[in-house]
Amino acid sequence: MTLHPSVAAVRVPVRGTLSGLAPGDVVAVACSGGADSLALAAAAVFEGHKLGLRVVGVTVDHGLQPGSAEQADRVVAQLSSLGVDETLTARVAVDVASGLGPEAAAREARYAVLEQVAAHLGARRVLLGHTLDDQAETVLLGLTRGSGGRSLQGMRPAFDVFARPLLGVRRVDTLTACRVEGLEPWDDPHNHDPGYTRVRVRERVLPVLEDELGPGIAEALARTAAQLRDDTALLDELAADALAEARRDGGLDAAWLAAVPPALRHRVLRLAALAAGAPPSELTREHVLAVDGLVVDWRGQKWIDLPGPLRALRRDGLLVVEAP
Amino acid sequence: MTLHPSVAAVRVPVRGTLSGLAPGDVVAVACSGGADSLALAAAAVFEGHKLGLRVVGVTVDHGLQPGSAEQADRVVAQLSSLGVDETLTARVAVDVASGLGPEAAAREARYAVLEQVAAHLGARRVLLGHTLDDQAETVLLGLTRGSGGRSLQGMRPAFDVFARPLLGVRRVDTLTACRVEGLEPWDDPHNHDPGYTRVRVRERVLPVLEDELGPGIAEALARTAAQLRDDTALLDELAADALAEARRDGGLDAAWLAAVPPALRHRVLRLAALAAGAPPSELTREHVLAVDGLVVDWRGQKWIDLPGPLRALRRDGLLVVEAP
Repeated sequence: MTLHPSVAAVRVPVRGTLSGLAPGDVVAVACSGGADSLALAAAAVFEGHKLGLRVVGVTVDHGLQPGSAEQADRVVAQLSSLGVDETLTARVAVDVASGLGPEAAAREARYAVLEQVAAHLGARRVLLGHTLDDQAETVLLGLTRGSGGRSLQGMRPAFDVFARPLLGVRRVDTLTACRVEGLEPWDDPHNHDPGYTRVRVRERVLPVLEDELGPGIAEALARTAAQLRDDTALLDELAADALAEARRDGGLDAAWLAAVPPALRHRVLRLAALAAGAPPSELTREHVLAVDGLVVDWRGQKWIDLPGPLRALRRDGLLVVEAP
Repeated sequence: MTLHPSVAAVRVPVRGTLSGLAPGDVVAVACSGGADSLALAAAAVFEGHKLGLRVVGVTVDHGLQPGSAEQADRVVAQLSSLGVDETLTARVAVDVASGLGPEAAAREARYAVLEQVAAHLGARRVLLGHTLDDQAETVLLGLTRGSGGRSLQGMRPAFDVFARPLLGVRRVDTLTACRVEGLEPWDDPHNHDPGYTRVRVRERVLPVLEDELGPGIAEALARTAAQLRDDTALLDELAADALAEARRDGGLDAAWLAAVPPALRHRVLRLAALAAGAPPSELTREHVLAVDGLVVDWRGQKWIDLPGPLRALRRDGLLVVEAP
């Protein structure tokens, strides 16, 4: 019997993610019951047990929808039938009044509780089921922010204890893998609610892009995200170094900064404003370019107003960001 | 009488582009008769004459459509009525058999003849009418390539003798400016031919993005392009330096390269393959990542096949790219 290609597509990257672990290590799989995380759990059981790992299935009940407790129970039963060594339901209260919006608030709560669960289990990894399609959607959502590479780098393949082994796997492969393995995925009604921008990106934007630009667009977006992630990491590191080097007497040496390439200089100025207390979400490229004018186009201008409120100004050859 | 905001939107960046020129200098404006280049020509006459510049209107007849000579004559008449100091029709033969495709072949021919015209006139600048909408379309076209920042950096604001002062101006402002100034723009039928990918991006993709993600998407794409242009310029420069530093005895020092951050290392490997003769259009990220495996994941692998045909292999601690 040959392995179905979609099952292989899911298992291979999971094997890669688990390859560094030792027998007896604990790995947790976050599972909503959707096709992506269900296929991920099946692959984690198969690959994890080959390595002698202990595989724990975790489902999070946000309590936001009626019947969410029943859905969590259903997922727990599925995880058990998949052969996980232990199941765990984490119930969280989402702070809908946090000002984050319901999606972001639920996400924050989910990661926080998964981190607690990982610590409790002593898990070496917590696997998340995000696919290449999720990554492409994230890049398209980032396009609207228009903040260059930073907004287009998508989701990280790994951070802290978390790993996303399916970031290079198409969603359709997780659906096919579930069908082939006799698993019945849950179709979250939220995944079709056009009130969510992400749903509109999935159901309206990506299909139009694929129709008009060609079928490889999701892969191209994911590839671009991976490259921009590397680029942004390096440029951010170089900018932090340059910021440290530019500091002098409570400001930044403007003449020194003027000789720094724009890609770094703009980042240094952004970092300087953030360090002075500017809220990241309010600091725009227009602000940074206006401050840059004080560095590279100095004609005795007045200060530049920045969110905070702060002022950027030039004083005795120094660029200073301070409260007004 | 107050200046109409759309006329101002076109004039202000044109003034900026011309500000460094001296009385008597020649500036050429490339004009197809479309709203963008017609509004650009009007602004160049207004701002150029204030500075004592000589403004020459240039129209290019590609001879690709029936009636193109009459259209060129119509543009010349419009340019004259705008008050340019001189008009010029450049006729070019487009090499449709060049293998570039009709759009790219026409573009190449157009830039080549404009360069000749600029040299002939002694022009200090040749102004091109590309707008923010053109820039957003170019970024979206680049998304399909999936080559990271390089494919998303859009059009350059200036190169050689050419300048694109309207890259931050919306197309609708050029249309409005024409209407306000009593100019009748030409609507090129090619601009509505869905056989061109760019036309489909303009008429189907961008409107869907604006509907689903919000009206600021074109500006966000243009902003992202500007940032990625800066980033790519710096990273390319650093990679060229790193390549020079890595060279040793006919190869690249693999141990030295392994310590270089991935954003640079991948670029160095790409440059090394290009330097060995790999055709840029065939060298993919997958090729580069496979070669990277020889550097950072060395387990005695065989060679990696690259387009050319070439082989990348590791020999005595050196990474070598050579003909098979």
